[in-house]
Amino acid sequence: MDPLLHERLAGRLGPTGYSVDPDILSPYLTEWRGRYSGTTPFLAMPASTEEVADVVRLCAEAGAAITPQGGNTGLVGGQIPAGEILLSLRRMNRIRAVDPVDDSITAEAGVVLTSVQEAAAEADRLFPLSLASQGSATIGGLLSTNAGGVHVVRYGMMRDLTLGLEVVLADGSVLQSLKSLRKDNTGYDLKQLFIGAEGTLGVITAATLKLFPRPRAHIVAVAATDSPAQALELLDLAKTRTGALAAFEIMNRTVIDMTVKNVSSARDPLGGSPPYLTLLEFDSAVPEGLSDHVESMLAEALELGFATDAAIAQNESQARDFWFLREMASAGHRPEGAQINCDISVPVSKVPNFIERANAEAERLCPGVRIVEFGHAGDGNIHYTVVQPVGLDPARFPGESISQAAHDCAHALNGSISAEHGIGVSRREELPRYKSETQLILMRTLKAALDPKGVFNPRALI
Amino acid sequence: MDPLLHERLAGRLGPTGYSVDPDILSPYLTEWRGRYSGTTPFLAMPASTEEVADVVRLCAEAGAAITPQGGNTGLVGGQIPAGEILLSLRRMNRIRAVDPVDDSITAEAGVVLTSVQEAAAEADRLFPLSLASQGSATIGGLLSTNAGGVHVVRYGMMRDLTLGLEVVLADGSVLQSLKSLRKDNTGYDLKQLFIGAEGTLGVITAATLKLFPRPRAHIVAVAATDSPAQALELLDLAKTRTGALAAFEIMNRTVIDMTVKNVSSARDPLGGSPPYLTLLEFDSAVPEGLSDHVESMLAEALELGFATDAAIAQNESQARDFWFLREMASAGHRPEGAQINCDISVPVSKVPNFIERANAEAERLCPGVRIVEFGHAGDGNIHYTVVQPVGLDPARFPGESISQAAHDCAHALNGSISAEHGIGVSRREELPRYKSETQLILMRTLKAALDPKGVFNPRALI
Repeated sequence: MDPLLHERLAGRLGPTGYSVDPDILSPYLTEWRGRYSGTTPFLAMPASTEEVADVVRLCAEAGAAITPQGGNTGLVGGQIPAGEILLSLRRMNRIRAVDPVDDSITAEAGVVLTSVQEAAAEADRLFPLSLASQGSATIGGLLSTNAGGVHVVRYGMMRDLTLGLEVVLADGSVLQSLKSLRKDNTGYDLKQLFIGAEGTLGVITAATLKLFPRPRAHIVAVAATDSPAQALELLDLAKTRTGALAAFEIMNRTVIDMTVKNVSSARDPLGGSPPYLTLLEFDSAVPEGLSDHVESMLAEALELGFATDAAIAQNESQARDFWFLREMASAGHRPEGAQINCDISVPVSKVPNFIERANAEAERLCPGVRIVEFGHAGDGNIHYTVVQPVGLDPARFPGESISQAAHDCAHALNGSISAEHGIGVSRREELPRYKSETQLILMRTLKAALDPKGVFNPRALI
Repeated sequence: MDPLLHERLAGRLGPTGYSVDPDILSPYLTEWRGRYSGTTPFLAMPASTEEVADVVRLCAEAGAAITPQGGNTGLVGGQIPAGEILLSLRRMNRIRAVDPVDDSITAEAGVVLTSVQEAAAEADRLFPLSLASQGSATIGGLLSTNAGGVHVVRYGMMRDLTLGLEVVLADGSVLQSLKSLRKDNTGYDLKQLFIGAEGTLGVITAATLKLFPRPRAHIVAVAATDSPAQALELLDLAKTRTGALAAFEIMNRTVIDMTVKNVSSARDPLGGSPPYLTLLEFDSAVPEGLSDHVESMLAEALELGFATDAAIAQNESQARDFWFLREMASAGHRPEGAQINCDISVPVSKVPNFIERANAEAERLCPGVRIVEFGHAGDGNIHYTVVQPVGLDPARFPGESISQAAHDCAHALNGSISAEHGIGVSRREELPRYKSETQLILMRTLKAALDPKGVFNPRALI
């Protein structure tokens, strides 16, 4: 690293605003599952938008690249530097405003998701985004990866929850668009550029997000189904009969069994080992009637053969148990050996078709594989995972081929090879296979226009 | 016009695909209120994406600019050419697919909004966008202006309702992104660029849009309030007590009286001439309970003093009557002389503040003005209109100053000078007053990157 740049950054940030100490750097340089690790000559930890802007400007002037990082919970390696300056936003952790009348909250990039949820609840409002890493994931990272999670079926992804952004651009200028407006048609909606851009076009420093009325009623249920097709029938019924569906998750028998085996206190909520379990969550602003609607919907589903068994959580503890099994799905199958983890989406109606085709391909490529299907079936998003056969030498597991076959299946069904995790470093080489030339050219045009010197996250996405 | 370009376009489009006949051109060249009229040497009427692509390519090669046009219902002049080739998308009017399981519909740019609504209803689904011009406005125009309307408070604007787009770019290449996915994090979300871009970055030729469960219950109510502040209290109650609010509109006494006077069959639904009327619409997937919830919410509002009177429509005919008054608000005040029509938005909580400030400014600039306040109060979007005093010489009405003062008030409250109508030609000169230098630079950067030759709609927006 250029000593002059080091000096300038250190001078601007002060002793608490940076580090080059390997012990301090270490947790920032390793991804939590241990799949990615990196290096950096300098960890910048600015505490204000002005400091971020100056870091970017100084780096741009010196021709030094930057990898921005939030809570370091990303799954595709986009937050881990390989020699770039590491820009951690964690010290920008103020909630600037909560406005219940406008149904909005303004938080800095380093605020963790649970803090936003809690601040909303204190104002008798809901911030609906919810995902496994919510205790560590930060608003900036969640926006940069357009995070999804379990409530997308009702409330949408981070993009849908965003009213305004504050962004530091590649020349160090600050795009200030923190409006809480519901409608604003005064030119290009610039904030859209930075949501889901994985830090390659700008550094998000703060956001104004949507809040919702806090639900007064909340019901969690599980239902057993014989097949993904049956689960889709149940999904339609759950949507149209209650108007209150907030989550619709699926798990197949394989992942249920692995999770019960590998995670102590995870329990299978229904007997009889059905091939699939669905987890349904409902919320409503009005307490009256919801449980009647859910009960009669489930009765109808049983009668119509869309479910073979069902149970409604009788209390919060049971609801947490139902969710615990689902939340532990990743931990449940990780110990089972070599595996590939996909995060595909297809049009909702194509989920059964995808599973059938992808399973056949996986079995063809490696007879005896154990196939894990779980995820957000209500959005057509399956965390499709193929685990090596029991007893196979992990080195002989054809993970790459199986992963590509699964991605090909999703693509052939007009689907996506990354529904919610992003492209990062891990999927970047695959993009040309699944994007049209026109799409790739347009993406490169945007990158060149907004970050002509390639300052931001040069190894991620594009 | 270059005769060679004329020959090439005519050859490509065939006799039914273009016109230079002044009688045929005339309705395309005049805005429906008569505020804008234009000229074109050539009306292109392609019937397929390939034809649109070839028109764009041929024009780009010849250095000829294009003004795209949908249903010609825009209010800011962006669709009227001044010498450019006029590209009408109306012949691209096929609905390509309706997928109730995926809750999606794919329609070409020239399909009118009511056709999409009807196709959705036939599949037992709802396409929620609804606005006054829905019998003429087309999907392409609605997307290009990110249209809003009366159901934004529940379902969002066109941007929020869009899953995928097909767009012809400035070099004639086709960006094909008609996916119906709910989740797709594989790089920059390119479709966002073209929504609300007013045809300056590409020509939208088709879109995949979101559908929703068709509501089984539907209630329309009116409530009288003394002030905008009271109306906001009612809004909060309506949201949190029912969870089913689908529209929340406001009209002040001035516009109610003008509409009753100037529009035959428009009726004031409540007696006593209250200062403000709010119109509330509720819908629900579940029929049971909604009317109880609405009734008890209104009773609570009356008790708390958030409303002074209220009525629930007893049948469809009465519901239409309530809506008719609101829909006729524009027609109601247009005959009242010289006036300025603003389409501002502010954070919802700031609506009372905006009205107070803007009214004081208007009265100061022109004593005796009649102030019309109506619109989508639930979104903070007021169609704020100031009408000349009775008897004043219209030439002496300081419309420009009053309009600027109203825009200044909205801007000072972190609001927008165009909530849903767009910038077009009419507001373009005002942008530098209300956008930061960083915002303007970024907008120009995008325009230069995507349309370097300035082919698309060169007089609109930026």
